[in-house]
Amino acid sequence: MDFGGNKTRKENEKTVGVVETNIAKIPLPNDGFELECGRKLKELQVAYETYGTLTAEKDNVIFICHALSGDAHVAGWHGKVGEGTAGWWEEMVGPGKGIDTNHYFVVCANILGGCKGTTGPSSINPETKKPYGSDFPPITVRDIVRVHSLLTRYLGLDKIAAVIGGSFGGMQALEWTIQAPDRIGSCICIASATALSAQALAFDIVGRRAIMSDPNWENGDYYQSGQVPSEGLSLARKIGHITYLSPEMMGQKFGRERREQSGDSYHNANLFLSNFQVESYLEHQGEKFVARFDANSYLHITRAMDEYDLEAAYGKIENAFARIQSKILVVALSSDWLFPPEQSAEIANGLLKCKKNVSYCCLTAPHGHDAFLVDVKHLSSVVRAFLPWVGKKTIRDDSALRGIPPMLYKAYNVIEKWVPEESRVVDLGCGNGILMDLLAERKKVRSLGIDISIENIITVIDKGHDIFQADIDGGLAMIPDKTYDYAILSDTLQVVKNPRLILNEMVRVAREGIVSFPNFGKLTHRLQLLFRGKMPKSNTLPFEWYGMELPRTPEFLHKSHGLVMSLGQFNQWVSSQ
Amino acid sequence: MDFGGNKTRKENEKTVGVVETNIAKIPLPNDGFELECGRKLKELQVAYETYGTLTAEKDNVIFICHALSGDAHVAGWHGKVGEGTAGWWEEMVGPGKGIDTNHYFVVCANILGGCKGTTGPSSINPETKKPYGSDFPPITVRDIVRVHSLLTRYLGLDKIAAVIGGSFGGMQALEWTIQAPDRIGSCICIASATALSAQALAFDIVGRRAIMSDPNWENGDYYQSGQVPSEGLSLARKIGHITYLSPEMMGQKFGRERREQSGDSYHNANLFLSNFQVESYLEHQGEKFVARFDANSYLHITRAMDEYDLEAAYGKIENAFARIQSKILVVALSSDWLFPPEQSAEIANGLLKCKKNVSYCCLTAPHGHDAFLVDVKHLSSVVRAFLPWVGKKTIRDDSALRGIPPMLYKAYNVIEKWVPEESRVVDLGCGNGILMDLLAERKKVRSLGIDISIENIITVIDKGHDIFQADIDGGLAMIPDKTYDYAILSDTLQVVKNPRLILNEMVRVAREGIVSFPNFGKLTHRLQLLFRGKMPKSNTLPFEWYGMELPRTPEFLHKSHGLVMSLGQFNQWVSSQ
Repeated sequence: MDFGGNKTRKENEKTVGVVETNIAKIPLPNDGFELECGRKLKELQVAYETYGTLTAEKDNVIFICHALSGDAHVAGWHGKVGEGTAGWWEEMVGPGKGIDTNHYFVVCANILGGCKGTTGPSSINPETKKPYGSDFPPITVRDIVRVHSLLTRYLGLDKIAAVIGGSFGGMQALEWTIQAPDRIGSCICIASATALSAQALAFDIVGRRAIMSDPNWENGDYYQSGQVPSEGLSLARKIGHITYLSPEMMGQKFGRERREQSGDSYHNANLFLSNFQVESYLEHQGEKFVARFDANSYLHITRAMDEYDLEAAYGKIENAFARIQSKILVVALSSDWLFPPEQSAEIANGLLKCKKNVSYCCLTAPHGHDAFLVDVKHLSSVVRAFLPWVGKKTIRDDSALRGIPPMLYKAYNVIEKWVPEESRVVDLGCGNGILMDLLAERKKVRSLGIDISIENIITVIDKGHDIFQADIDGGLAMIPDKTYDYAILSDTLQVVKNPRLILNEMVRVAREGIVSFPNFGKLTHRLQLLFRGKMPKSNTLPFEWYGMELPRTPEFLHKSHGLVMSLGQFNQWVSSQ
Repeated sequence: MDFGGNKTRKENEKTVGVVETNIAKIPLPNDGFELECGRKLKELQVAYETYGTLTAEKDNVIFICHALSGDAHVAGWHGKVGEGTAGWWEEMVGPGKGIDTNHYFVVCANILGGCKGTTGPSSINPETKKPYGSDFPPITVRDIVRVHSLLTRYLGLDKIAAVIGGSFGGMQALEWTIQAPDRIGSCICIASATALSAQALAFDIVGRRAIMSDPNWENGDYYQSGQVPSEGLSLARKIGHITYLSPEMMGQKFGRERREQSGDSYHNANLFLSNFQVESYLEHQGEKFVARFDANSYLHITRAMDEYDLEAAYGKIENAFARIQSKILVVALSSDWLFPPEQSAEIANGLLKCKKNVSYCCLTAPHGHDAFLVDVKHLSSVVRAFLPWVGKKTIRDDSALRGIPPMLYKAYNVIEKWVPEESRVVDLGCGNGILMDLLAERKKVRSLGIDISIENIITVIDKGHDIFQADIDGGLAMIPDKTYDYAILSDTLQVVKNPRLILNEMVRVAREGIVSFPNFGKLTHRLQLLFRGKMPKSNTLPFEWYGMELPRTPEFLHKSHGLVMSLGQFNQWVSSQ
């Protein structure tokens, strides 16, 4: 994750413009700010930036939690626009962007323990008038979040419309949502986890050891020596950078390319420094990091990250999640191996178990973990759709049925009659969510959509529904048992690969299942329209029941069209064919 | 990869017993042994071990190439059996084991640049009478292999029946097979590559840098200081150990478990040393390694490994592989992410392109890269089956047809007539290779089998045929275009998921395709027997043509049984149904 350095400004790029980091000296009780470890900080200052305009109701606050090595400067430019230092998430935050500063009042603060203006190990200890160094107390994610909380109160911001974070920032966002359910309206948790995996721990462990092995570290008291543990910090950063990129992207970006074409590798200035491009890259990352980051901050923050463990803290994840009142969006990145998609899926699954409002998507992201910083195209759209106001389409007026294609009209009408008010529904293959609209509008039904397409995910999230991105052909592993009143498979059975699997999964996740078929009208013509390009041409009807014991004939299709059945009725009907 | 330390001896375990490492002082020309870099070593000594008995014909030599941190002590015990130090591949090498010392004369030597008896940076430089240190010249894989080659000549061993290596040892095995095609009978290359990936390079780069950053390293001249760069070497080793384990296995072995249950992590002796089990593990591995390995050897050997690149050396891989005359077995490990299966598959694919005799399998190996050392059950069987004599079944007498099940007899008979002598055949879903036996025996046909089951792989390799482990439902990506005269799909079409894909792939990889169906005799009865437990019971015949435009009726099956058709005939026949 590279939060530093200049970025070339694109022409016509919208930006919040020139910004400055502010420092807040947080008023504390006389004995100071008590940390989770029991020790107290006598003074607490927090560096923060804000963009956009606060509404009179103060209800448009978005708080961004930064990751391991970030800072308060999330958007805009220090110095001159296009020439100074751009914010680390400039692509995401600004007018018209994913986090739209035309609508929101955005706050980002450097975390406790950091080295970018908020109290940390390199700050002056008011009791000794020297930098804390080895005397800086251990901190936790909860401490970090409590500092964010104090800052927002200090700024007069009681309600946080949304808290957003990626990676370690996602842990903070989650923790805040759990700690202050009354203050947090919604939460976006990107490429994160409720605890690091053993492998991620291992990389941090080696990184810390590299710093501690550097003779300049001096047990943390190096500030006055004039010598910083730069070799150790650089090593730690290089290990980190390997884990931030997917192996495929590392292969694509660097492969085995070399800096110069000579190919004579026996006469390097140093035999053991290769001329592989990947070495130059890592060296460069190490050097940049050493110039902008403090080794003790790295130690303290990675330690806090390693120790974070919601399950250990609450006995089980569900005990933590039970406290949450906000809507949550969980975003995974497909080729992230540091915070792999399974860990995001676990969060989403745990929230479903607690019957929370949660959406989940796994973005195609070849970069790996770094994608949340460098490849924000889809991420911006998903975030923008999820945030409470921006881009909301006004389709949920009384005319919800107007959006329904004629061939689904009859089936939807029946489903609407069958589903009781305020029941919990999962809509498998929900498409753009029209049935969900209808049931929300007419029956006050809270439904979860399941769909594979990112465009549908964005549309449905934008409408305010919950949705999980998943391939229903692979089953519904992320949905806990008996979580729903109704599982609906509408106009979808004919395109699934393994109907038996889906039908069994419907029985597992819901009390009742409903299967419906489109009413094609002039059947053959419409079918050709529907399946054009999707199925291979053939003499028989291009309507395949992969592996299912169903007659695969035009007659069957004629019989099924427009039908709506409970699972029991459907099974009876199939065996009668 | 942990080559060191004692191992508990299992009861009744067969072992070569107590062994010793020998030192050979290799006779050199007056000006010494010239390395690829142009510099010369005035003296060359090699540490080696041998087990088993050399035949009078000297045709049973197996040479084992060790990996990064191994040594000559591959099997048996130094000191007392069960109490001293076991060889690093004791599970694999010994009487009745994968590499069976009852049959073979096994040789293993410490590599050039090592620190276990073969000339390396810690050896005494005869010109200065001091350890080489920074004066040790850069070495390459080719240098390492040339030293193996000199050693075997010195021992009077001209022919190597098989050279075997895993990881970096696999690179050496491959290189030797390319360099000395006339000397090497066969080659087994396990969890290796023709060049490291960018990610693997990156880990080595950071590891070397950790050693060089250690002030004790002193540019390599630390031998007389009494201080070795143990912190740096330990860091490098820890990074290595993370990469040797799959993330899943690391999660299973350590997860987030802690050394003690106190949970109070604020008062460790050192705040930044965690009590996670994974930290203890890494510390232990680092300490053990520092006690047994030399940092300069680590630098030189990893450098040689990083620089190894068959494609760069030969322009393209095929130019290197074209030289090979040996049979080759390429073994991948399913969850290896340091030398991922794709890299082994690339080797196998390249060898096929050059029409070499190659077999490939990907063993289910949850441990990751380390599996070749710690989980050798299947590996032993595959290696044992591949080696020239051990376990060979004597089924290839003139009665090859005896092994054929009656229902395939007729089809095989037709296929035998169709396939010309000495043609090249790929048998898709070859099972235990009976058709391959038949064609080899009667028509001198050299065939490649494709099958998914490890038992079939072992059986077919044991018979001396080539086989690739692959799921034909996923296509035949590893088979280059038009490599074969005939692609045969015998008694298999009815169980593939996507017949169209397979039929298209047959056309791609071979000039002609043959499809055959079993002759079931009393059809219904035999079918029930054949498919019992494999297909769900139902009223219709449990014979599924996943997604293919074929009538799925008992009548069709009756018509097809016993048929043998070219692809052209088959397509005509299907459209006539």
